[in-house]
Amino acid sequence: MKSIQIGVIGAGQCSLEIERLAEEVGREIARKGALLVCGGLGGVMEASARGAKQEGGVTIGILPGFSFEDASLFIDIPIVTGLSHARNVLVVRSSHALIAVEGGYGTLSEISIALKLGIPVIGLHTWEVSENIIMADTPKEAVKKAISLIKK
Amino acid sequence: MKSIQIGVIGAGQCSLEIERLAEEVGREIARKGALLVCGGLGGVMEASARGAKQEGGVTIGILPGFSFEDASLFIDIPIVTGLSHARNVLVVRSSHALIAVEGGYGTLSEISIALKLGIPVIGLHTWEVSENIIMADTPKEAVKKAISLIKK
Amino acid sequence: MKSIQIGVIGAGQCSLEIERLAEEVGREIARKGALLVCGGLGGVMEASARGAKQEGGVTIGILPGFSFEDASLFIDIPIVTGLSHARNVLVVRSSHALIAVEGGYGTLSEISIALKLGIPVIGLHTWEVSENIIMADTPKEAVKKAISLIKK
Amino acid sequence: MKSIQIGVIGAGQCSLEIERLAEEVGREIARKGALLVCGGLGGVMEASARGAKQEGGVTIGILPGFSFEDASLFIDIPIVTGLSHARNVLVVRSSHALIAVEGGYGTLSEISIALKLGIPVIGLHTWEVSENIIMADTPKEAVKKAISLIKK
Repeated sequence: MKSIQIGVIGAGQCSLEIERLAEEVGREIARKGALLVCGGLGGVMEASARGAKQEGGVTIGILPGFSFEDASLFIDIPIVTGLSHARNVLVVRSSHALIAVEGGYGTLSEISIALKLGIPVIGLHTWEVSENIIMADTPKEAVKKAISLIKK
Repeated sequence: MKSIQIGVIGAGQCSLEIERLAEEVGREIARKGALLVCGGLGGVMEASARGAKQEGGVTIGILPGFSFEDASLFIDIPIVTGLSHARNVLVVRSSHALIAVEGGYGTLSEISIALKLGIPVIGLHTWEVSENIIMADTPKEAVKKAISLIKK
Repeated sequence: MKSIQIGVIGAGQCSLEIERLAEEVGREIARKGALLVCGGLGGVMEASARGAKQEGGVTIGILPGFSFEDASLFIDIPIVTGLSHARNVLVVRSSHALIAVEGGYGTLSEISIALKLGIPVIGLHTWEVSENIIMADTPKEAVKKAISLIKK
Repeated sequence: MKSIQIGVIGAGQCSLEIERLAEEVGREIARKGALLVCGGLGGVMEASARGAKQEGGVTIGILPGFSFEDASLFIDIPIVTGLSHARNVLVVRSSHALIAVEGGYGTLSEISIALKLGIPVIGLHTWEVSENIIMADTPKEAVKKAISLIKK
């Protein structure tokens, strides 16, 4: 059986506080044996991937640009798309559930596509645009909810 | 000089009231000599394209699916992408400004990408997720604001 | 009824001789009342669009980059994709038939996708990789064959 | 340091002989410690992934459709794109080098994009459309050449 893939979405630049949250989300995903999917760049993406690697997890970075080198140090498997922002849809589709950590407009576009497709979205200090986003108070709770909401 | 391209975004299914708004947006776009860009399907997309055709405008439908036949009757130029929701990004990028008429999660994804890219978004009864969305009260006002905000 | 859309594919840089061929293809497409679809940039794309405009035709340029300004002077309707080479698939899908004028590897990728999808490909001095490419000796013959092969 | 990613491209349906070749290519990729990237479906893609798994390798399937379930049994990491044939470009871009095993028009489109982008293509009984395709006689030789040609 294939592993569960959990996407972590958030901005490419963020505060230290948000970074710490994202890192703990990554650690928790790895502890649960799930794969971490993200956009492969900095900020929340990098912090969550770093967390996952600290716990021996596997990280996938779906990159918007043209080069493997764009991936952060903590990405095991870079997917090079060359699609710019259209790659956001691939981050969503390649995740069984998503955890949004804060995030800007790019993150909001990913949340929207996930809600459109019926993929569960867990929110940590993120956009409150729909009752269909399941809010969580801690990284641990976010990952637990993400896993529990994945369609079997 | 090429024409201005104004995108109209909104749900594929909507109430009669919203349809009437969208139709009037389309008429006003055509009266101003701008091209109408949309997702090419039903609801707000079809209503706005119908309005544009009533005033002799030109309509472009950027379709998510695989067939020219998916385009509504009021689309002059179907662009067949086969990209599913990733085509939303193309609707945004191919517009100098966007007018959102109500809309669901798909529309919200387009609004988000536009805000990310700095493309002006005018809202008519739409998502109020950012102060960067310029609200308008009437179709006429929406089109006027859209045109005035386009970067020269 | 919507117009027939004929795609013209070829390299972004080419000899004067190939440019003249492409220009005549564009003129002939316009004379037949079909819309010209291309990649919107230079070389064969620009020459064919210029030809179409000389005869009052309408030209659509499906651009790989991020800016309307990338389109050549002879494009009426720029579609801005930001998808880089993945936009080649859209040039193919948005054409009822394709005419390949010489062309490099990018053109070969478009020919391949068209053959895969069953979209007719007419060739003028182009890749001879399959018997399913219908060769033509002149622009006039190429356009005639393209129109005759479109599935009704 | 991240692993080398080698793409294996070929048809979704093929003869037993070609399947055996693809399987051996997959085994050899795994033996070299490289990751195998493919389109995630049947035929050459499935056979190469099966081979890689026999040798304990890791397999990535970049899927054209909408569902994780489309991936063959031997794919560890499905990337769900929903982009149809436009995903071919991602298979190419996400590989440091490609090995083409026979293949139809879809494979030819991937070869073309790789040649356009300057990504090395090794061929086993495949399209002979360019001197830039490096032909190999055996899977072992193909993988060896692929690795030797990757830009450092």
